[in-house]
Amino acid sequence: MLFLIGLGLGGAEDITVRGMRAIETCTKVYLESYTSILKSYEEMQTLIEQFHGKELIEADRDLVEQGSDQILDDAATTNVALLVVGDPFCATTHADFFLRAKERGIGVSVIHNASIMNAVACTGLELYRFGQTISVPFFTDSWRPDSFYEKLGVNKANKLHTLCLLDIKTKERSYRLEDIMAGRTDVFLKPRYMTAPVAAQQLLEIEEEKGEGWATPDTMAVAVCRVGTETQKLAFGTLKQISELDEDVLGGPLHSLVVTGEVHEMELKMLELNKI
Amino acid sequence: MLFLIGLGLGGAEDITVRGMRAIETCTKVYLESYTSILKSYEEMQTLIEQFHGKELIEADRDLVEQGSDQILDDAATTNVALLVVGDPFCATTHADFFLRAKERGIGVSVIHNASIMNAVACTGLELYRFGQTISVPFFTDSWRPDSFYEKLGVNKANKLHTLCLLDIKTKERSYRLEDIMAGRTDVFLKPRYMTAPVAAQQLLEIEEEKGEGWATPDTMAVAVCRVGTETQKLAFGTLKQISELDEDVLGGPLHSLVVTGEVHEMELKMLELNKI
Repeated sequence: MLFLIGLGLGGAEDITVRGMRAIETCTKVYLESYTSILKSYEEMQTLIEQFHGKELIEADRDLVEQGSDQILDDAATTNVALLVVGDPFCATTHADFFLRAKERGIGVSVIHNASIMNAVACTGLELYRFGQTISVPFFTDSWRPDSFYEKLGVNKANKLHTLCLLDIKTKERSYRLEDIMAGRTDVFLKPRYMTAPVAAQQLLEIEEEKGEGWATPDTMAVAVCRVGTETQKLAFGTLKQISELDEDVLGGPLHSLVVTGEVHEMELKMLELNKI
Repeated sequence: MLFLIGLGLGGAEDITVRGMRAIETCTKVYLESYTSILKSYEEMQTLIEQFHGKELIEADRDLVEQGSDQILDDAATTNVALLVVGDPFCATTHADFFLRAKERGIGVSVIHNASIMNAVACTGLELYRFGQTISVPFFTDSWRPDSFYEKLGVNKANKLHTLCLLDIKTKERSYRLEDIMAGRTDVFLKPRYMTAPVAAQQLLEIEEEKGEGWATPDTMAVAVCRVGTETQKLAFGTLKQISELDEDVLGGPLHSLVVTGEVHEMELKMLELNKI
């Protein structure tokens, strides 16, 4: 049996009691480190050892995507857990993994948890008034994708809020000439996480080009930082105000951004608790 | 301090370790029974007693909406927990409660959990390809609201999936002549939960009237039953097929329905695991 166990948003303690009890039955426990870069590996290890005295195996992206036969081989004969940040199905990778287990006749048990897709309601904006979620990638000098602007437009035209998930770059290959010349494929850049101010700035730049009015300097938005953790920080203001926020005001990753649609009275009261 | 603690979707064990540890610090623990009608009160009580030896206080809708001063009075001087099914902010009621606590200067800690809004990804449909969530109310002879049909249309026109939350009727007053004549306001009908087949049927009826093609007999959809519980059941087929499913095929409440938009290859593979 394969257990896909969601870890929620904060620290190790955000695992559910059901998740902990499933781990108890497992001979191997993997912690996915690709999507769980921000999770304290040590913190999780401590919690699991405290309860079960089990060793946690770090599973990086390659292991989950390419080497998952190893995990599935074990799951065919014994109980194995794969711990993932948020909810297990928030990443497409896990649907693939789920299917491969099913094809091999391996039982799969999914243990759900919170993810940014529902916890964003902590802003006070009502979940059923959100439209399609969009992803905002880092611009480069030569690559400035803008398809998300049109999706934002559809939401805004229908008075809906828009959750913007912001780019994360991990395991980027080093472009240093020395590394390329030496044929080194194991040198990676420091992970990069897009902040809410950068996302707001990119939206304003696209607005300049497109001019349809969906992301003007006066468009209201919420910077949503480290949701569900003890250092959670929200900041409600215009895209211009958010784009100008200092890094130390919002703090470290992960950030998301919500562009608001039509805001109802109760929503506004909640938003104003975190006005810039 | 007031703790708003999400219980997730399944049984008592879906509470997080953080939630359990917060309860440990509380002098009073309320379980909201309005939105948590399907949660086994006894099961939760057992879990909490097992860990902490605390009594669970049932808080019905009236207590949360009107009588919440009592809960807030306690929270002003001691730690109090309110346990709610799903994620604490999925119901508007809790935003109101949150605001009232804030206005009184009471600290509020929110402990997130899974809700149908993210766990619906268990269908294999990708969350970032959903549009606005819609609510489908029970039709009566004289009341057939259809505003959700237009919202469905916006999603379908943009190739997006649509999560339909289905009506729940609890604490409906009895219309029996004897009760009305006796002025009895404390007699309630048995709770009613809309099933996926009824929702599919209502969508087909509105399609008949409107004829815009968003919910035809051939429109593909997924019946989503008791997500996150051990008896979870999914059924993928046309709206006509779902509308004709026997009650015992899908089992008891809660049901939701997803009307699919454009379906990608990996999504289709996942859906076909549960084909009717």
